[in-house]
Amino acid sequence: MLGEVAPPVRLPMSLAEFDIIRRYFTRRSGRADVPLGVGDDAAVLELAAGRRLVLAVDTMVEDVHFPAGLPAADIGYRVLAANLSDMAAMGAQPAWMTLSLSLPHAEESWLDGFAAGLFELADRYEVALVGGDTVRGPLVVSVQIAGWVEADRWLTRAGAQPGDALYMSGVPGEAAAGLALLREPRPEAEAEARALRERFLRPQPRVALGRMLRPLASAAMDISDGLLADLDKLCAASGCGAELDLDALPASAAMQALFAPQTCLDFALAGGEDFELLFTVPEQFEAALLAQAGTAPGCTRIGRMVEGAGVRCWQGGRRVEIAQRGYVHFAS
Amino acid sequence: MLGEVAPPVRLPMSLAEFDIIRRYFTRRSGRADVPLGVGDDAAVLELAAGRRLVLAVDTMVEDVHFPAGLPAADIGYRVLAANLSDMAAMGAQPAWMTLSLSLPHAEESWLDGFAAGLFELADRYEVALVGGDTVRGPLVVSVQIAGWVEADRWLTRAGAQPGDALYMSGVPGEAAAGLALLREPRPEAEAEARALRERFLRPQPRVALGRMLRPLASAAMDISDGLLADLDKLCAASGCGAELDLDALPASAAMQALFAPQTCLDFALAGGEDFELLFTVPEQFEAALLAQAGTAPGCTRIGRMVEGAGVRCWQGGRRVEIAQRGYVHFAS
Repeated sequence: MLGEVAPPVRLPMSLAEFDIIRRYFTRRSGRADVPLGVGDDAAVLELAAGRRLVLAVDTMVEDVHFPAGLPAADIGYRVLAANLSDMAAMGAQPAWMTLSLSLPHAEESWLDGFAAGLFELADRYEVALVGGDTVRGPLVVSVQIAGWVEADRWLTRAGAQPGDALYMSGVPGEAAAGLALLREPRPEAEAEARALRERFLRPQPRVALGRMLRPLASAAMDISDGLLADLDKLCAASGCGAELDLDALPASAAMQALFAPQTCLDFALAGGEDFELLFTVPEQFEAALLAQAGTAPGCTRIGRMVEGAGVRCWQGGRRVEIAQRGYVHFAS
Repeated sequence: MLGEVAPPVRLPMSLAEFDIIRRYFTRRSGRADVPLGVGDDAAVLELAAGRRLVLAVDTMVEDVHFPAGLPAADIGYRVLAANLSDMAAMGAQPAWMTLSLSLPHAEESWLDGFAAGLFELADRYEVALVGGDTVRGPLVVSVQIAGWVEADRWLTRAGAQPGDALYMSGVPGEAAAGLALLREPRPEAEAEARALRERFLRPQPRVALGRMLRPLASAAMDISDGLLADLDKLCAASGCGAELDLDALPASAAMQALFAPQTCLDFALAGGEDFELLFTVPEQFEAALLAQAGTAPGCTRIGRMVEGAGVRCWQGGRRVEIAQRGYVHFAS
């Protein structure tokens, strides 16, 4: 027979859904394109002519995407960072978000912290929270982001061509190393450990880089499941192969100080949640890329696209086989 | 210390996230305004000139919003119905949705059923699924809906004026009665019970009614937390009061056959999840409303807006006090 369900009839209490939304999540965004924001059945938003709407969603579950006991501010920051990273990968400008928050109980200090982390990042990117749904349940946090991109061109995973150069931003694996350090602290190397934890807790979404790449890159995606797994997806979507030069991967001094070389390589190739951009650039645009990118988020050429399918790795001038391919949901 | 978290490195398996999205949730929508749908970092969508984007989200948790063991098709249908009901309440036309699905394990029969229920309703309203995130976790289902409304006017909860007539669609309380019957079956009255269960399992979102009301209603919202609680919110948003005529509420023969009169009244006033529209109409538009509405979803005049604040109930010519005010999340 069907199980129990919470009775539909309740008396009002101080921290009901309505109060949570009003108290913690209703703020003036300062955006002129939000005629109606939080508090009604839906939000109403203005999209300028010549723009396309860009829509994505990312969900994080306690004990799956972050350790139980992670400070609420870090959870709020990270779930929005994942969404901003999706916008970056499209070359889009983020603008609005809605929040779905399933919480075991309405604890004010938790909500304070969560809102602080969420809005810290939202304010930096001028993203307005325009709606939400808070429900009682296990700790599951989902942000839906909406932004825009010019109608003439946006970035997908599908445009890479043989001959294009393969680039990534940032340093792969540091976020995975940071997560490992949250689980098993290493007090003997606190400075390095703190730097790596920050890479997991406070990733910097590459929105500005994505906007810059919009006219230059032939394909782009964000690295969320691990460099190899995501590169494999880019190859499949583009209908070509890739050669990845392991010697060219940016090295992390902090990671190397704390982990064995093989573990560092595992983190770099298969550690998820980097939220960096992986992208391909046709030869004729490489000079423009290097001129514009400077060294800001540290874009590094890590290989090239080739005929064929799948990823081939090279190290010390030799082809190497890699077994682990990154984070896969529902793997047992 | 921080708890355990699933390791970030996994080997690929047959039903990984990528496969789930491709197998169950990637379908041609037939919409011409989806240049890029499921499968990339985000979706790209076209919004015609003169339209405003309308955005909402609804989340449902097992054992909170539906009983454990409810067929997956019913869950897929209901979570989209809740979102369509939000669009209806704005006078908006639904167009696109994203899905966030947290699942304990990737069971193919469950996914088959869920997709069937979700797309049954999506196809009826021509809503395209354009993105999603499937994660491992407790059963939490969230749909984010996007639609559009003409730039000159949309419906909110805030426009009601003293003197406006108060209307609702449908029959209040039947969904709550249906949920009660899912928990405690009444085999002796199967025909009535089935009809009420259907009202919970297959609510009809009032999208067409909402579109019709867009130029006529002064305020509108959908009834999701119970008639009294939601009318209270409409009053607060509009800055006026309401007189509710309990004798005018549409009666449910099926409900009356199965429940005591007081229980029927509780369901009608405080039972949530009706997904009917509650709306106010200025006197000069009432004739137009009645001419256009016909009896389709059964719109009924149930009271009027007055000066002041809050809801006053009348029955048999007398003022009555009602204690229970509808579903409140996080009430203990």
